[in-house]
Amino acid sequence: MTVNTIESSKSIGIVQTQYFTLNEELILESGEKLFPVTLAYETYGALNTTKSNAILVLHALSGDAHAAGFHEGDKNPGWWDDMIGPGKAFDTNKYFIICSNVIGGCKGSTGPSSINPQTNKPYGLDFPAVTIKDMVNAQSGLVKHLGIEKLLAVAGGSMGGMQALEWAVSFPGRVSAAIVIASTFGHSPQQIAFNEVGRQAIMSDPDWNDGNYYSKGLSPVRGLSLARMIGHITYMSDVSMSEKFGRRIKDIEQKTRFSPDFEVGGYLQYKGDNFVKRFDANSYLYITKALDLFDLTNGSSPGDAFKVARDVKFLIMAFKSDWLYPAYQSKDIVKACKLSNIDVTYCELNSTYGHDAFLIEIEGESSLVGHFLRRVSHE
Amino acid sequence: MTVNTIESSKSIGIVQTQYFTLNEELILESGEKLFPVTLAYETYGALNTTKSNAILVLHALSGDAHAAGFHEGDKNPGWWDDMIGPGKAFDTNKYFIICSNVIGGCKGSTGPSSINPQTNKPYGLDFPAVTIKDMVNAQSGLVKHLGIEKLLAVAGGSMGGMQALEWAVSFPGRVSAAIVIASTFGHSPQQIAFNEVGRQAIMSDPDWNDGNYYSKGLSPVRGLSLARMIGHITYMSDVSMSEKFGRRIKDIEQKTRFSPDFEVGGYLQYKGDNFVKRFDANSYLYITKALDLFDLTNGSSPGDAFKVARDVKFLIMAFKSDWLYPAYQSKDIVKACKLSNIDVTYCELNSTYGHDAFLIEIEGESSLVGHFLRRVSHE
Repeated sequence: MTVNTIESSKSIGIVQTQYFTLNEELILESGEKLFPVTLAYETYGALNTTKSNAILVLHALSGDAHAAGFHEGDKNPGWWDDMIGPGKAFDTNKYFIICSNVIGGCKGSTGPSSINPQTNKPYGLDFPAVTIKDMVNAQSGLVKHLGIEKLLAVAGGSMGGMQALEWAVSFPGRVSAAIVIASTFGHSPQQIAFNEVGRQAIMSDPDWNDGNYYSKGLSPVRGLSLARMIGHITYMSDVSMSEKFGRRIKDIEQKTRFSPDFEVGGYLQYKGDNFVKRFDANSYLYITKALDLFDLTNGSSPGDAFKVARDVKFLIMAFKSDWLYPAYQSKDIVKACKLSNIDVTYCELNSTYGHDAFLIEIEGESSLVGHFLRRVSHE
Repeated sequence: MTVNTIESSKSIGIVQTQYFTLNEELILESGEKLFPVTLAYETYGALNTTKSNAILVLHALSGDAHAAGFHEGDKNPGWWDDMIGPGKAFDTNKYFIICSNVIGGCKGSTGPSSINPQTNKPYGLDFPAVTIKDMVNAQSGLVKHLGIEKLLAVAGGSMGGMQALEWAVSFPGRVSAAIVIASTFGHSPQQIAFNEVGRQAIMSDPDWNDGNYYSKGLSPVRGLSLARMIGHITYMSDVSMSEKFGRRIKDIEQKTRFSPDFEVGGYLQYKGDNFVKRFDANSYLYITKALDLFDLTNGSSPGDAFKVARDVKFLIMAFKSDWLYPAYQSKDIVKACKLSNIDVTYCELNSTYGHDAFLIEIEGESSLVGHFLRRVSHE
C-alpha cells in the first residue's frame, strides 16, 4: 500500500484554533475538581440545520486540535489533513468536523503548564491526575456548547481511539458511530513499560526538578528528548526502519566517540530535539499515565464493558506491522463488541509503517472510513 | 515449552574466575594498540590428551566469564549453569568448556574502567573503540595460551552468537563448529536504535561527565538504569510480559504522583537499579557500539562473507517470540551458509520468552546442542 495524497481532493485552506472554557468546574474521576477548564479545538465544514452531521476527531499522545488545513503562515497542514477536507474521507462538503485537544496537554487546553488560579503560577505537579474519561468529559462540554446533541461519529487513532471508545461507552446516546484505529481498550504491560521508561527518563533529568521548571529557564529537555526517541522506535516497524535507514552511516560534521554513527540514530536524535520545542515534559507524564491507566473493562469482562454501547456502530482498524498496538488488541475490541451484539466492522490493513500507519496509510484508511461514514449517515 | 532444570544432571560446584594477560599488545581493527590486555575466563571439565574437546562459550552484552558453577559463597550459579555441567548440553564429563569475557567490558577484562598505563588513571573515553573482531582476537590469544589449536566448537547467544560467527569467519581453521543462538550477522536499524537510545540515556546523565566519573564518587546511575530498563523491555516479549505482570498494580509504600503504578514498571526500575551495581556505564557504551558496528558481510554479500568458513559446521537457533533478534536474522545466516555450501542446521524454537529465551528455554536448547555436539565430536 502506498502513501497517497488524493489528487482530486483539496485542502481546507487557512484555519484557526479556537478555545472554549467550560462554565463550571470539571469533576475528575479522582474526585478532584478542575477549574477553569479550557479546550483548544478546530472545526472544518459546516453544521447542517438538523445538527446531525458532526464528527468529533480525537488525537494521539502528542497531537493537537490542528487536524487539518493550514495555520496562517505555516508550510505544513494539520496532522490528519490527508483525511479531512472536501472530498476526503472526513468530507467537509458533507460533515462538520470538530477536532478537540485534551486536558492535561500543552496545546492550548488546561494542563500542568497552565496557570493554577490558586497560586497564579503554573500548576506543575499540583495539576490533578487526569484520565481518558476526564478528557472525554471535558469534550462533552465542548460538544454541548456547539449545540450538538448527538455526534454522527467519534474517530481517532491510538490515544484518539481510546477517547473514541470512551465516548461510545460513556455517552452511548450521544454517539451514532465510533471509528477506532490502531488502539486498545487497555494497555498491555509492554505498552505500559515503554511509557514507564519514557516517564523515568523525564524524571531522571535534574532539570525536571519535581515538575517545577517553568520559571527556571531550564526544562528537562534531555529527558523529554529521550522519551520521544523511545516512542519513535515504537511508532515505526523493523521493516519501515530498514527501508528508511538500512545501515547507512550518518554524515557527521563533528564526530565524537559516541555520537550516532548511523542515520537511524541521527534521525531519532533530531526527532527528540525537535519534540522538546513543542511539548511540555509534565504533559508527557500526565498523558502517558492516563494512557496506562485507561481500562475500559474496569475489571469486568470486555463484553460487559461494551454492552451500554450496543446502539453504536463501530469501525475497528489495525495495521499488520503495528507492534506497539498489535492487531490482537483491535480484535479484542471486535470480540467484545460481538459479545454485546454490536454492529462492528473490522479491517486489518497491510502496511509496513508500524503504529505510524494510522497517520500515513491514507488510501486504505480513506476508503474504509468513507464507506463507513456514508453507511452510518444514511441510516 | 517449560523452563526446565534437568534433575538428572549436577552442578559443577565451586569455580573461580581466572585471568590471562596477553604477552603482547593487541592491534585493534581501528589500528590502535591496546596494552596490557587481560581477559577474565573460567573453565569447566578437563581438556583431553589430544586437546580436541574444547568448547569456547561466549556471553551476551551484560554477561561475564562466570557461566557455570558457583563462586564461593554465592547463592546463584553462573548465567548458563543449566546448560553447562555433568550430563548437561555442554557436558563437562566429555568437553572442556572455556567461557571468556570480552575486552571493553567491566568484568575483569581490560575495558574503559581499567587503568591506563600511560596516565595511571582509568581510561574513560581514552579507551580505544573495540569491535567484536577485537574481542575475538583477544580470545584467540587465550585459546592459544591454553594450548588448544582447534576448538571443537564456539557457542553463544545474542552478542555471544556474534562472537561465535566472528570466530568461525576469522579463524575457520581453528573451529570445527559454531553454535549461534538468537543472533545476527549485522544489527538492523531497529536494534541500533534501541542501543542508541540507551547510549543517549547514559550520556544525557550529567554524572556521566564525558566518561570521567571514576574518581568522582558519582557515576551515571540514572542513565545506565534507563538504558537497562529499555533493554529489558526488548529482552522480553509482549506475551511473556502479559503472563508475568498482566495489569497488576504494584504494592507501593511511598506513592508519589508518577511512581510506577503497575508491577511491570516497578520490576523494570528494580532491574535498572540492580544493574548499575554490577555494570560500568562506559563499558555499556563501548560494547553496544561494538554490537551496532558488527557487520560480518563487511559490505559484501552474506554468502561471500561465509565462504571462508566452509569447513565449519553451524547450528543456528532462533526463538519465535524474540522480536529483538527476530528469526529472520537467523534464517539470513542459514541462507548465507547454504550459499557457501556449508553444513548448517537451523531450528526455530517455540517460546514465549522473547530474546531472553536463549537463557531460559533450556530443554529445547539442550537437546539440540547436545545432539549437535555429539555429531561434530564423533566425526
